[in-house]
Formats: sequence, structure tokens, C-alpha cells
Amino acid sequence: MRQITVNLAGRSYDILIGPGMIARLGECLAPLHPTSIHVVCTEVVAPLYASAVLASSNAVAPTQLCTIADGESVKNLSTVSTILDALVGGRADRRSVVIALGGGVVGDIAGFAASIYMRGIRFVQVPTTLLAQVDSSVGGKTGVNHPSGKNLIGSFHQPSIVVTDTATLKTLPAREVRAGLAEILKHGLLADRQYFERTVEALPRLLALDADALEEAIAVSCAIKAAVVGRDERENGERALLNLGHTFGHAIEALTGYTQWLHGEAVACGLCLAADLSARLGMIGADALEAVRGAVARAGLPTRIPGISRAAAFATMRADKKAVAGRIDFVLLERIGQAVRRQVDDAAVEATLIDGGFV
Amino acid sequence: MRQITVNLAGRSYDILIGPGMIARLGECLAPLHPTSIHVVCTEVVAPLYASAVLASSNAVAPTQLCTIADGESVKNLSTVSTILDALVGGRADRRSVVIALGGGVVGDIAGFAASIYMRGIRFVQVPTTLLAQVDSSVGGKTGVNHPSGKNLIGSFHQPSIVVTDTATLKTLPAREVRAGLAEILKHGLLADRQYFERTVEALPRLLALDADALEEAIAVSCAIKAAVVGRDERENGERALLNLGHTFGHAIEALTGYTQWLHGEAVACGLCLAADLSARLGMIGADALEAVRGAVARAGLPTRIPGISRAAAFATMRADKKAVAGRIDFVLLERIGQAVRRQVDDAAVEATLIDGGFV
Repeated sequence: MRQITVNLAGRSYDILIGPGMIARLGECLAPLHPTSIHVVCTEVVAPLYASAVLASSNAVAPTQLCTIADGESVKNLSTVSTILDALVGGRADRRSVVIALGGGVVGDIAGFAASIYMRGIRFVQVPTTLLAQVDSSVGGKTGVNHPSGKNLIGSFHQPSIVVTDTATLKTLPAREVRAGLAEILKHGLLADRQYFERTVEALPRLLALDADALEEAIAVSCAIKAAVVGRDERENGERALLNLGHTFGHAIEALTGYTQWLHGEAVACGLCLAADLSARLGMIGADALEAVRGAVARAGLPTRIPGISRAAAFATMRADKKAVAGRIDFVLLERIGQAVRRQVDDAAVEATLIDGGFV
Repeated sequence: MRQITVNLAGRSYDILIGPGMIARLGECLAPLHPTSIHVVCTEVVAPLYASAVLASSNAVAPTQLCTIADGESVKNLSTVSTILDALVGGRADRRSVVIALGGGVVGDIAGFAASIYMRGIRFVQVPTTLLAQVDSSVGGKTGVNHPSGKNLIGSFHQPSIVVTDTATLKTLPAREVRAGLAEILKHGLLADRQYFERTVEALPRLLALDADALEEAIAVSCAIKAAVVGRDERENGERALLNLGHTFGHAIEALTGYTQWLHGEAVACGLCLAADLSARLGMIGADALEAVRGAVARAGLPTRIPGISRAAAFATMRADKKAVAGRIDFVLLERIGQAVRRQVDDAAVEATLIDGGFV
């Protein structure tokens, strides 16, 4: 088992990573002394892991299960309302704990519900997808989508602990494993060239779910993210670099109805577009651009998603949370291993979108 | 004009109190450099003050108006959703500012919407009821009701500034002025005996809307609340004392559908019940109990609200946010000017409810 600490004054917490962690969930929860535990998971994850989680957590406090539908389309205020009703119905109080069991969507929704129930109760992340394990379960961003934009509604609410059972990846569809690799590649690209290169080399083992390769990649990715979040929890500066590939990625997701492409797939394509834009602005060379595209392709992820409207993409990016007064704040590559924020002329973005297959 | 500062590391803010402050709103907003301003108010307040607020704030940034229905019954997630839609539609970004113009309900809803829009944008309180001016606009508690309990959904989100125009009280119904006096009496009872006694003496002038008496009472009440909030923003301890009268009061409101009694009226009755329970436990004498009841009666507020079910009141109080594992945490009087938290046997609470006219 590996342990990564997210250092935040007064709200520091640990990320525990290893195979079989769900069986040890009870010992992770016991120090929280919850009055009751409320597990939120989807109808897809419930048959796989709910009984193991309940067995483990019921030893600590009375535990209830709240099952929601699967998919990004349930990531809305209405589902939050359903979870809040379940918390009220289950008599959750200020010392209760919400467990988000599942992927990034469940973590975002359940964490947001916990953050606004009684003005904030504790929650624990038990991520079961690679994407959630390396990215969304860490850092305390919670929220839901608005028809006009992804995560437009939400809060900062740090988990009390993140318990990552790498064995859950055995039940994850291969497509979702690949989607998780996008965020791992992103972490290397924005912060650590050697880690990026090691990841590219390790891709075959990661795709084959090699236990050691997974534990290593998850731990390093979490450590990179934890360091950034520890320095800038509320995204006043550096934390925005974690959005590398996400401005384009969010637009792709929004304009394909959040159903056609997985978040990680959209981000993978977004990484290629961000690299293309960086190269177009002379920030990186053609070799670095090809290294990004090659890594994304070797991970089995899309380097291009053709057919999306450029005008709609611009409109969506301008409505993005990071935009101020309609100016889009891009995260670009200064080199592999170093991201920077930059505002870019529309013409360069337009050229990147055209080359990327936007219409 | 009087100025009270709420001291919170990194999030300190001023409360500006005086007649005619709405005309000076622009100069209060200018230092915030907002990209846009979004005023939320009810259909009752809009015809009275919206045009003055818009004139003042439009000089600082493009301003939009979002009008919602009036009353505690709109204090729900659905109205929050409406406001969020208006913010999205109005292209509010991370540097936009929400203005809550009106009473406590608007402040709670609009503040909550601001707290979850893009994970939190700034908001400004412009309270137009006495209750909001002395209590709810200060301290950063935002939220909405759930059918099972008041303010069960919400967040802590401090305003950037509170601009209190005491002249707005001239358009406030007399019943609502009286309701505001309940919170002023509460502040004296829990923290400052002399202020309580001065307030009782000043009641005729306050009811007659004497400008000096109002400015004095609002400033002292805000200062008492600001001091408590500055020491315990998240209600881990002392701040709970501000809930004097509110455990009973919230039950009265919930069990009369949030429509029959104003919040301040329910709190006034709650103050009498809390004093009765304190006397019953030997904490205060009969003279202090009579002083509380006498003050509430002289303010034209109810000392008893008969006919509510005791069983339902217990159930509601056990579902209150302050209850843990079903045990109700009461705020009681040690003496006039000093409140304390206490868990109380059901039998004493039952006796207080019976004497209070509960059935």
C-alpha cells in the first residue's frame, strides 16, 4: 500500500492506494467516528462493490446505500436533490459521513451533496475507475453540470480520506482504463517530463492492468496533483495548470451531449489540441507535438474528434468557468513537463480547431 | 453612517449602515471591480428599490436583474436553480458579483446560489428588512429549506460587503419591523444585558422607526454577531449561541408550513420557550423569565403559539442540523446577557412545550 498526503492547513488528508483496500475500508473509517455512513454509488457499481463496502463500513457505523443511475447525464442538480433526500430520510447529521463509491461522476455529485448538506458534512472517496483514482477523487473539486457548461455548479469540499482499491480496475471496461490514462499522461505533461516518458514506456503494462505499474502510476499522479492542490487549493493560480487539455476537452464533451465521449477521451484529444496550439505559437517544437500525439495514440485514445462546430466550440469555451469577460484562459505547454497559462488570439485557436477536424 | 468590520482571516468585510446607502451603492461596489453584477430580489422589493440599485450599480458594471417570487416557500433548490440559470444566461463569470437585495430569504438563496456558481463567486448583501439588517445578512450562512427542515441545504459563504440602507425600513410592513426586533432582543439576551435593557427601553422609538434608534440598534446587533462569527465562523462552538430561540423557532416555522408565522415571530416565541426551559432547569429566576416575556410582548411579538403538536415538534427538533445522533442541542440562558449550550432531558422540554400551548 502507498500513502500520499494532501497538505492543506486544517484539512490535510491521506490517499491510500493498493489492491484490496475496500476490505480495509472499516479501519480507514473508524478514526472518523461517524454517527452514520451513507454510501452513494451507481446502479453499475452497486452489484460489484456495494456489499463489500457495506460489510466493511457497517462495522464502524450504521450504513445506508443510495443508488443513482449511471453516466454523466445524471450529473445534475436533480440527482443532488435525490441524494439530499436520502440523507434527510436516513437521518444523517453533522457527524455523518458520505462515501462516494465509483467513478468521477459519483465523486463529484456525492461530494457536492455532502458539501451542502447541513452546510457541509464529511465525505470519503472510494474511486473505482482509473480516472477517478488518478485525478477526480483528489483535490476537493465537487460539482454538477449545467446545460450550458460542465461543472458550472459546485464547491470546494475536501474529502476526509481517499481509499483507492486498485483491484477494482479489473472490473473496469478497457475503454475506461484508456480514458484514465489521459489524466496520467496529462500529469506528466504539465509537471514531470520523466514521469511522462516512463508512462509512455509503461503503457502496455498499464493497459494490461499490471498491478505494480498501476500502483506506481496512480501514486505518482496523485502526488503531482496533491502538490499542486496543496499550493493552490482554490485555483487562484497554479492549480489552473491541471486543466491542461480541459478547455478543449470540456467543449468536446458539452457539444457531444456528454454521452458520445468519455471525459478522459475528450481530455486526450484536448491534450493534442493544446499541444497543437502550443506548437502553433512557437512554444514547443514539432517533435514535442508528435510525442504528445504519439502517447495519446499509443494509449488507444483519440487524437482527433472531427465534425464539431468551431463556432459552438468558441461559445462553449467562452462560457467556461475559467473565462473572464469572455476571454478564454488556455493552459499550454512551454515544454513537455511544464504547462503555462496563456490568453491566445482567436485566429490561432481557430487554426488549431480546423486542423483538429472541427467544422 | 456606521461601519462594523467582520474579522475573518482573508475574508474580512465591512458592514456599512446608514440612511440613503443605496444611492451610494456604486461607490461601495467599485473597489470589487466586478465584470458584471446580478441583482436578485423578490417581486415585492423590485418595484421599490430595483431601479435605484440598478442606477447605482450600472455605473460600476453591466447589471442584470433576476426577480423571484416572495416568501419563505420559494426558499428551495428549485429557486436556486432559477437563479443559476439567470447567472449562466447573463454570462456571469468568476469575477462577477451577485447582489442579494431584500430580506433574509433572498439573502440566503442568492448567497447560496453565488456560493455554488463556478464553485463560488462574490456576493453583496443589501438587506431591506430589519431582520436581515441585524442578523441574516451578517455571518455568511446561506442556504435553502428542505421539506424536512429549515436551512438543511446550504453553505458558508461570506459576503464581500454588507450595505444597509436604514431608510428602506420605511417601506417595511409594521409586522416585519416587529419580527426584526426579535433578533435584536436575542442579541442582547445572549451577549449583552445592558444592550438588552436599552433595547427594551427603546422599543417605542424602534417601532416608530426613529432613525437614530434604528442605526444604533442595527450597529450594536451587527457588532455582537460579527464578534461571535469572527471567533467561530463555522459554528464549531460559540457561534451556536446565536441560535438562542431558534431550535424552538425553527420547529414552529416548519410545523406551520413556513407561512403562518414570520421567522422573527417564531424566534420571539422560541426565546420565551428557551427562557421557560432555562427557568425550569433552575438556570434563571422567574424575574428573568418575565423580563424576556415582557420584552417580547412589548415588541408586539407572540410569547405563545398554541396548538402545535408536541410529538411533531420533538421529531422536527431531532432532525435539526444542530442535533447529533438524535440528541437536541439547546441554547439556554445562564442569565440575561449570557447564553450557554445544553442537552436537556425530554421531560423538561415536554413540560415547557405543554406550558407553551403545544398539544
